Amino acid sequence: MKVFRTAEEIQSYSLNKRKEGKTIGFVPTMGYLHEGHQRLIKEARTHDDIVILSIFVNPLQFGPSEDFERYPRDEERDLKIAEMENVDAVFIPTVNDMYPRSLSITMKVTERTDVLCGKSREGHFDGVATVLTKLFHLILPHRAYFGLKDAQQVAVVDALIEDLNFPVELIPVPTVREGDGLARSSRNVYLSEEERQEAKYLYQALEHGRSLVKNGEKDRNVIINEVRNFINEHTHGKIDYVDLLTYPELQPLTHINQRVILAIAVFFNKARLIDNVIFEQNGELSYE
Amino acid sequence: MKVFRTAEEIQSYSLNKRKEGKTIGFVPTMGYLHEGHQRLIKEARTHDDIVILSIFVNPLQFGPSEDFERYPRDEERDLKIAEMENVDAVFIPTVNDMYPRSLSITMKVTERTDVLCGKSREGHFDGVATVLTKLFHLILPHRAYFGLKDAQQVAVVDALIEDLNFPVELIPVPTVREGDGLARSSRNVYLSEEERQEAKYLYQALEHGRSLVKNGEKDRNVIINEVRNFINEHTHGKIDYVDLLTYPELQPLTHINQRVILAIAVFFNKARLIDNVIFEQNGELSYE
Repeated sequence: MKVFRTAEEIQSYSLNKRKEGKTIGFVPTMGYLHEGHQRLIKEARTHDDIVILSIFVNPLQFGPSEDFERYPRDEERDLKIAEMENVDAVFIPTVNDMYPRSLSITMKVTERTDVLCGKSREGHFDGVATVLTKLFHLILPHRAYFGLKDAQQVAVVDALIEDLNFPVELIPVPTVREGDGLARSSRNVYLSEEERQEAKYLYQALEHGRSLVKNGEKDRNVIINEVRNFINEHTHGKIDYVDLLTYPELQPLTHINQRVILAIAVFFNKARLIDNVIFEQNGELSYE
Repeated sequence: MKVFRTAEEIQSYSLNKRKEGKTIGFVPTMGYLHEGHQRLIKEARTHDDIVILSIFVNPLQFGPSEDFERYPRDEERDLKIAEMENVDAVFIPTVNDMYPRSLSITMKVTERTDVLCGKSREGHFDGVATVLTKLFHLILPHRAYFGLKDAQQVAVVDALIEDLNFPVELIPVPTVREGDGLARSSRNVYLSEEERQEAKYLYQALEHGRSLVKNGEKDRNVIINEVRNFINEHTHGKIDYVDLLTYPELQPLTHINQRVILAIAVFFNKARLIDNVIFEQNGELSYE
């Protein structure tokens, strides 16, 4: 497995692989890999000749009060997992490699951002779009793999690729869950034992909402209220949001008549958990 | 010569050419081609296997009070010139092909823009950077050719490529001039006969400024004043700006100790003419 640390090295590697006629699958991460990431790598492994993983905690997408410094990092363990998953090359630059000078040009994302998690993270998706633009230019992937756990990020990447004509196919990959349905996340370790028991009800709440739609309910407010009640009944978590929006446009709708996302964020004592389901107007899952 | 009108067609053409191992040279234009453009095409022809010309009057880079509607267009003549110059493919999309929906994501240029022509054209370079990002993704060039007549645009493209890691080499091409030194421009036709006689002094003013540096003058203000006086003595034009800045950073400096641009913009009755020279600290031209 190759490990590259500079922009020049990875771009020249990718250009060579393209010249050889290989397809490149790209899995961008902030490291501290877990089974969610491994699923992305496995997915890339099945589609593409060459799998490139990036590990970069991008300061541009963290707000001043957010946890850029505290974000967990474990390079040695990440490289072992990457090797185990047969990754061909890892790109693991320093902040200075990625931003050798202050940027004269950045991306401004004006849609799909003022809802869900974006509402409380101003500028976050500008930073995501900017670093992905750089990474796409360095890694030159045919396909890029993103986890649907962060469905809003997937929606923004969809717009990025479509609006700016990147020659990249976006592959959204379903969320990996524990046996009881809890979405895998690095933050699950912050849950107390009791909270961990309750956390399974978040996914059940989403599935409850989806079952309403399957059974003919079309009214957004009814579904949102049912999901809120379900969470409040089964957990001590404090709801940040429960929302139901069109997907991937993330527009509100009153009556479900197209693909939608039902998404939640809930505060526990030391962790804020997010989860979502994306489904068609008949309630069938859109990604499985 | 191929003529493509949709994003899908040109991107698939370019991807195929890359697969065949061809290098692609790209000449972006707004059409109404003149010898300046032909020089860019010839330059591309000498470096690259495939030369792609784009013709697109980009609404995003025109201000509300600017001349987007009035901008001269002559597709038939442009295609003849392109054919004559052995262009391989012309990309000539409609506004709707390039912007089928309102963009969720645009580029924001924060440096190299608040001087020279950028000072009076707010948002202009955001529009330039956005359309070029799209065109680079559609045409996938190895090299992109830009005329130094619009040296500020070249400086912004330089930052775009560098900051966002585009796998594209920027080739700045010297300004094409008439026999008496006047820079070629579609706008020269707006000059009266008398103004056309005077217009040659703009280049002479620049060369006068440069000769001062060759003879040891290093003081920015002295040079700017000499150039202003020269223009005022020899023409009836009204000076918009005369400026001397580092190149390509476009920062002010008091004492010339690196590559600089000496740039002017002068209003005549119906035309605003721009011109510039870029030279080293000893006065030698940087591009020839």
